[in-house]
Amino acid sequence: MATPRRRTPVAAIVLAAGKGTRMKTRRAKVLHEVCGRPLVYYPVKRALEAGADPVVVVVGHQAEEVEAALRAHLPGAPLRFAVQKEQLGTAHAVLSARPSLRGFDGEVLILSGDTPLLTTETLRAVLRRRGRAALAFATMTLENPTGYGRVVHAPHGGPALVVEEKDATDQERLIREVNAGLYCAEAAFLWKTLSRVGSKNAQREFYLTDLVALAAEGPGAVAARVPPFEAAGVNDQEELSLAARALTRRLAERLMRAGVTLEDPERFDCDEGVEVGPDTVLEPSVRLRGATRVGAGCRVGQGSILTDTTVADGAVVKPYCVFEQAVVGPAALVGPFSRLRPGADVGAGAHVGNFVELKKTRLGAGAKANHLTYLGDATIGAGTNVGCGTVTCNYDGEKKHPTTIGERAFIGSDAILVAPITIGDGAYVAAGSTLTEDVPAGALALGRSRQVNKEGWVAAHQAAQPAAPAARRAGARRPRRAAG
Amino acid sequence: MATPRRRTPVAAIVLAAGKGTRMKTRRAKVLHEVCGRPLVYYPVKRALEAGADPVVVVVGHQAEEVEAALRAHLPGAPLRFAVQKEQLGTAHAVLSARPSLRGFDGEVLILSGDTPLLTTETLRAVLRRRGRAALAFATMTLENPTGYGRVVHAPHGGPALVVEEKDATDQERLIREVNAGLYCAEAAFLWKTLSRVGSKNAQREFYLTDLVALAAEGPGAVAARVPPFEAAGVNDQEELSLAARALTRRLAERLMRAGVTLEDPERFDCDEGVEVGPDTVLEPSVRLRGATRVGAGCRVGQGSILTDTTVADGAVVKPYCVFEQAVVGPAALVGPFSRLRPGADVGAGAHVGNFVELKKTRLGAGAKANHLTYLGDATIGAGTNVGCGTVTCNYDGEKKHPTTIGERAFIGSDAILVAPITIGDGAYVAAGSTLTEDVPAGALALGRSRQVNKEGWVAAHQAAQPAAPAARRAGARRPRRAAG
Amino acid sequence: MATPRRRTPVAAIVLAAGKGTRMKTRRAKVLHEVCGRPLVYYPVKRALEAGADPVVVVVGHQAEEVEAALRAHLPGAPLRFAVQKEQLGTAHAVLSARPSLRGFDGEVLILSGDTPLLTTETLRAVLRRRGRAALAFATMTLENPTGYGRVVHAPHGGPALVVEEKDATDQERLIREVNAGLYCAEAAFLWKTLSRVGSKNAQREFYLTDLVALAAEGPGAVAARVPPFEAAGVNDQEELSLAARALTRRLAERLMRAGVTLEDPERFDCDEGVEVGPDTVLEPSVRLRGATRVGAGCRVGQGSILTDTTVADGAVVKPYCVFEQAVVGPAALVGPFSRLRPGADVGAGAHVGNFVELKKTRLGAGAKANHLTYLGDATIGAGTNVGCGTVTCNYDGEKKHPTTIGERAFIGSDAILVAPITIGDGAYVAAGSTLTEDVPAGALALGRSRQVNKEGWVAAHQAAQPAAPAARRAGARRPRRAAG
Repeated sequence: MATPRRRTPVAAIVLAAGKGTRMKTRRAKVLHEVCGRPLVYYPVKRALEAGADPVVVVVGHQAEEVEAALRAHLPGAPLRFAVQKEQLGTAHAVLSARPSLRGFDGEVLILSGDTPLLTTETLRAVLRRRGRAALAFATMTLENPTGYGRVVHAPHGGPALVVEEKDATDQERLIREVNAGLYCAEAAFLWKTLSRVGSKNAQREFYLTDLVALAAEGPGAVAARVPPFEAAGVNDQEELSLAARALTRRLAERLMRAGVTLEDPERFDCDEGVEVGPDTVLEPSVRLRGATRVGAGCRVGQGSILTDTTVADGAVVKPYCVFEQAVVGPAALVGPFSRLRPGADVGAGAHVGNFVELKKTRLGAGAKANHLTYLGDATIGAGTNVGCGTVTCNYDGEKKHPTTIGERAFIGSDAILVAPITIGDGAYVAAGSTLTEDVPAGALALGRSRQVNKEGWVAAHQAAQPAAPAARRAGARRPRRAAG
Repeated sequence: MATPRRRTPVAAIVLAAGKGTRMKTRRAKVLHEVCGRPLVYYPVKRALEAGADPVVVVVGHQAEEVEAALRAHLPGAPLRFAVQKEQLGTAHAVLSARPSLRGFDGEVLILSGDTPLLTTETLRAVLRRRGRAALAFATMTLENPTGYGRVVHAPHGGPALVVEEKDATDQERLIREVNAGLYCAEAAFLWKTLSRVGSKNAQREFYLTDLVALAAEGPGAVAARVPPFEAAGVNDQEELSLAARALTRRLAERLMRAGVTLEDPERFDCDEGVEVGPDTVLEPSVRLRGATRVGAGCRVGQGSILTDTTVADGAVVKPYCVFEQAVVGPAALVGPFSRLRPGADVGAGAHVGNFVELKKTRLGAGAKANHLTYLGDATIGAGTNVGCGTVTCNYDGEKKHPTTIGERAFIGSDAILVAPITIGDGAYVAAGSTLTEDVPAGALALGRSRQVNKEGWVAAHQAAQPAAPAARRAGARRPRRAAG
Repeated sequence: MATPRRRTPVAAIVLAAGKGTRMKTRRAKVLHEVCGRPLVYYPVKRALEAGADPVVVVVGHQAEEVEAALRAHLPGAPLRFAVQKEQLGTAHAVLSARPSLRGFDGEVLILSGDTPLLTTETLRAVLRRRGRAALAFATMTLENPTGYGRVVHAPHGGPALVVEEKDATDQERLIREVNAGLYCAEAAFLWKTLSRVGSKNAQREFYLTDLVALAAEGPGAVAARVPPFEAAGVNDQEELSLAARALTRRLAERLMRAGVTLEDPERFDCDEGVEVGPDTVLEPSVRLRGATRVGAGCRVGQGSILTDTTVADGAVVKPYCVFEQAVVGPAALVGPFSRLRPGADVGAGAHVGNFVELKKTRLGAGAKANHLTYLGDATIGAGTNVGCGTVTCNYDGEKKHPTTIGERAFIGSDAILVAPITIGDGAYVAAGSTLTEDVPAGALALGRSRQVNKEGWVAAHQAAQPAAPAARRAGARRPRRAAG
C-alpha cells in the first residue's frame, strides 16, 4: 500500500507510558500481545502507514522493554522514544515528546498506545478532517458512554469542550458522543496550547482533552467521527481478549475475500502480515504466526501451528503439526504430528510423517521420513527413504555434527547414525544398525548383532521357579529383557 | 426415512454450472466443501430424498470434477449430467437439462447447486404447495433483501412476477419477500414456457424467474414461503463458513437429542451421516468425518479426528488421536497421540498409547502397545505386550512384508522386527534386539551386543586433552557417542 | 472465603432422585458432568458454602453412583443421603429427607440437583429474604415462561400460589414470573405443611410448589427474585452444554480479573478450583482440569490439557501437551507433544521435548530429554542429557523396576536401559547401546556391534538379479533390511 504523499509533514506521538493497573499484571499494559504483537505496535504501525515520520513513543513503565519490543517488530522505522517519568496526565505525556520533535513544523497525530484496532484509513480521515482547523479530534458515539470523556458542543457550532466522567454534570453524562483519544493538531498550536493546560479537575491531572476547549476559544476545533470499536483502548484482560478476536476476525475476512477457505473463522488465529494463497483450505484451530506464508491450493490441517514458515503451493499439512522457521516445498505432504524446527526444509513432494522431528535438515525432493524419527543437522538427498525410528546423533554432549545422506538411499528402521557421518548415494543401511563410519555409495552397511533363539527357555524357567509367574522369573535372570 | 410414494413422478434439475467468481478460487463454487462434502452434494441428496428420479445436474465449469464428485459421494443414485456450455442465465441452464428429461412427464424440481442447508421437508412442502398450479416457487422474507429478486404480487392475488435487483424500481426494491431460487413445475408447462423467456434485462441473461410472470399470465403460480436461512445460496467464502457452521450445528443438535453429550457444540465438526451412541461424551474440538460410527458409553477426547472409523461401545479415545479407516473394539483404550491408519484394528480391551502408529495391523484383545511404536502389516495375538520403541520393519525399499506375533508374547522395548517374521505364542523378545528370523513359541530371542564398561574413561580423556571440555574431547574420539 | 456465622442453623435438601429422561441417556441426569464435576456437585457445594450443615441429598435413580460421586468430590463434607424409592413429586421427595433431619430445628434450604449455575450469593440472598416469613422461594422473570410454574400474586400482597404449566389457565400462562425451584423454610413449618400437600393436579404428583399457597393461607410466603440464568435447571443435552459454557465463562472471567491472559475465553475449558497466577498467558484451546495450579508468568500452549498438575512460576508449556498428576518446575520448558503421566516431576529449568513421555520419573534441574523418549520409574540427576530414542525398560512382563541416572551424565541416542539399572554421575552411554548392567560414575558404557560396510553390494545384487529392481532383490536376501 503506497502512502499518498501529503504536502504537510506529519509526525505522531503515541502515548505508551502507563502501567495499566486494570490488567492486574506486572507487565506494562502496552506490552500485552494480540495477534503476536504488543498492543503498542499497532498504533505505531498505523501512524507510520499514514505517513508519520517520525513517530515519537512516550514511554514510562517498562520503558526499555517497550522500546525493545517496538524496535524488534519495526526494524528501521523512524521511531523516537521520549520518557515520561511521572504520570501526570495525557497532556503532560504529550509534552514529554516535545524535545523529540524540536524543529518539527507540521501536523502532529496523537494516539493512545493501547488501540490495536485503529485503522490507517481512520487516521487518514482524521488528518483530512482537520483541514484548516488547528485541531481535529476523533469522537465516537456509544450506547453506553460510561467512563469516557463526553463531547460538549457549542449551541450553534463545533465542539466546545470534552468533560471527563469524573468532572461531568449529570446532564453531561447523558451525552453519548465521547472522546476517542485520537488527535491531530498543528505543531505550533499544540505546543503553545499545551502549556496552558492546567490540572484543576477531580483527578488533579493535566488532561489532553483540555486542548478542545482551548482550541474552541481560539482557532477552532473539529470533531471527526470514527467507528466506535476501532478507537477503543484496551484496559483489562477481557478487553484484550475481545481486541484479539476482533483483529483476528478482520484478518480472517481479508483472507476469505482473497479466496482462502476458513472452515471456521471463529477458531482461527493469525498474525498481521501472514499471507495465504487462494484455493487453500485452513481447517479449524489453525494458527498462522509471524511471517508465515502459505501458498495456493494447500490444505492446513486442524490445530496446526505455523510460525515464520513458508509452505509452497499444493502442499498438504495434516492435523497437529507444529512448525517454526521451516520451509515446506510444493506438493509436499507433512503430518499429522510432525514437528519442523528452525531450518527444516522439506523438498518438493517429500513426505514427513507422524512423530517425526526435523531441525536444520534438508529433506530432498520426494524423500520420505514417515515415522518416529529425529533428523537434525542433516542433508538428505532426493528420493531417499528414511525408516521408522531413525536418529541422527548430531550432538556428542558438546558440539553438533552434520549427517549427509545421498540420493535414493535406503535407511532401514532404527538406524542410529552417529554424526559426523556421510552415507553415499544409493547406499543401503540395514535395520537396527548403529553406524559410526561413512558408508560408500551403493554399499550395504550393517551394525547389529546376530539373532539367537533359546528354544523352550520360557518353559524351562517356569519349571525352575515353580512358585512365581513365568514372566517374573524370566525377568529375574540375565539377559534381562524389558518393555516400557 | 422412507420416502412417501407420490402419484406424480418427480424429477429434479440442479443448477451447478457456474464458476462462482466471488469465491475467488480456481475451483468451481459447487465443489467447495462443507462438512466433508461438496456444496452440490446437498441439494442433489435432498432431491433424491424427496423422491426425485432422475436428478439432472447441469454442469459447466469443471464439469468433469463436479460429475466425479457427485458419483463418488452418491454411488448408484439416478443422476444425469447435462452440460451448459455458455452461462446465459438460469433459464438457459434449465433448458440445457431438457434432453436429459426427454419423455419425462411429471413434475420437475429446480434447485440451486449452492444450497447446502435446504431440507427434504422444505422440498416436500414446495411439492405439496404446487397442488394444481403449473408452478410453485419458494420465497423467503428477509430483513435486508439486497441482491435478491423481489416478488411482486398482483393487487388481489398471487405472485405476478419476480424482478431482479438490477431491473427493479426503487419502489420494488423495498419489497422484502424475495425469490429463493427453488421451483416446482409441471414438465410440460416448464418446457413450453421456458422457450418464451427472453433476455431483455439489465444483465442480458435468460432469467428463470421470468417463469413466474409467464405462469401468472396463464395457468397461475403459487409462492411457497420457506425459512430464509435454509434456501440461501453460498456465494463467497464468508457464506461458505457460515453454512458449514449452520449445518454442523444441525448435526450436533441431532446428536444431542439422541443422548450424546457434546462438551461444546460450537467446537465440534461432523459430517452428515456420522452416528454416535447415547451416553457418549465428545470433548471439545472433536471432528467426526465420513462414515464414522461411535458406539454408546464412549468418550472421545479433545481434538481427536476420526475419519471412516468405527468405535465400539465403551471404548475411550483420549485427546489428540487421528484415525482413518480404523476399528476400535469395545472397551479399548487408545491415546493420547495415537495414530490409527487404514486397516488398524484394535481388539476388545486392547490399549494403544502415546506416539504409537498402527497401519493394516490387528492388535488382539487385551494386547498393549503403549509407547512410541510403529506396527504395520502386523497381526498381534491376544494379551501380547509390545514394548516401547518396537518397530515392525515391514518395508524393504520395494515391498511390504507381514509380521505375525502370537498370543501372550512379550516384545521387549526397542525390538526391531524385520518382516516377514513370525513370533510364536508366549515367546519372549529381549529388549534392544533386532530380529530377522522367526521365533518359536515359548522361546527367548536375543539379538544384541554384550555391554562393556570402560571405567575412568571420561576422566582419562579429560586428562589427555586438558584444554578442552570433557564432553567435547570424549566426543572427538571413537567410539563416538551422540544424542539428538 | 469465610462463611458468615448465622444465628439460626441451616440445613439443605438437594433433590437428586430423578432420572432426567430428556437427557436420553442411561446415566441419571445429575451425574452428567460440567467442568469436570457432576451436576449435583454444584448445588451441594453452594449449600455448604452458604453454611448448610447437614446437606441431605435425596437420591433415587442410580442412588449409589450419586452418593459415591458426591463423597469423592466433597470428602469430609457433612452430607446425608435419603432414598426416594418412588418418584411421586417434589413434595414427596422433600419428605423423604425428613428422617435425615430428625431433631433439626432451624431453617431448611431446598435446592434442585440440576442447577450448576446457582451461586452462594443467591442462596444467601434467599436466606436473608425470608426474614420472619415461614417460607421464601426464589422466582425469576423469563421472556418465555413456557414449562415453568407461574407465580400468582394476591391482589394486594405477596405471592398467593404457584400454578404448574399443565394446571394453569390461559390467563395464568401469560405470567412471566416463574418459580425457580429454590426454597427456604422453617423446619417446623416445612414438615407440618408438607403433610397437607395433595396430588389433585394434572400430573397426580405431590408438588412442593403447593407450599406457597399453604404458606399464603397461614404465616405468609415471600418471593425472592433471582437472576434467571442462575437458577435454571439442566434438562437436556443442549442445556447441559449451555451450562458448561456459562460456568466456564464465569471461571474464565475470574481468571482474567486476576491478571491471567486468555487468548480466547471462548476456547478455554476449566474446572472450578483451578488456580492460575498473574502474567500467565493461556493460548486457545487450553484445558485445565481438577486441582491444576499454574504459577505466575507462565505460558501454556495451544491445546494443552493439564489435569491435577502443578506448574511453577515462569514455566513454559508448549502446544499439545497432555499432563496428569505431574509437576513442572520453575522456568522449565516442556513440549510440544509432551506427555507427563502421574508422578512425572520436571525439575527447575529442565527441558522435555516432543514425543517424550514421563511416568513416575524425576527429571533433575536443568536436565534434558528432548526427543522421542520414554522414561518410566526413573530418577535422573541434574544437568543430565538424555538423547533421542532413549527407553527405560522398566517392565519385564511382570514387574516394574527402577532406573537411576546420576548428575551430568550423557545418555546417547537410542540407549535402551534395562531396569533395574544405575548409571553413575558423569557417565557416558554410547549411542545405540542396550545396557543391562550398572555403569560406574565417569565410565563409558557401550553395548553395540561393530559396523561392517559391504562395498558394491547393491550393484552386485542388481547384477545377480537383472530382471528385478535393485531394492527388491536386495530385500530378498539376508541380511534383510527394512524400514517402516
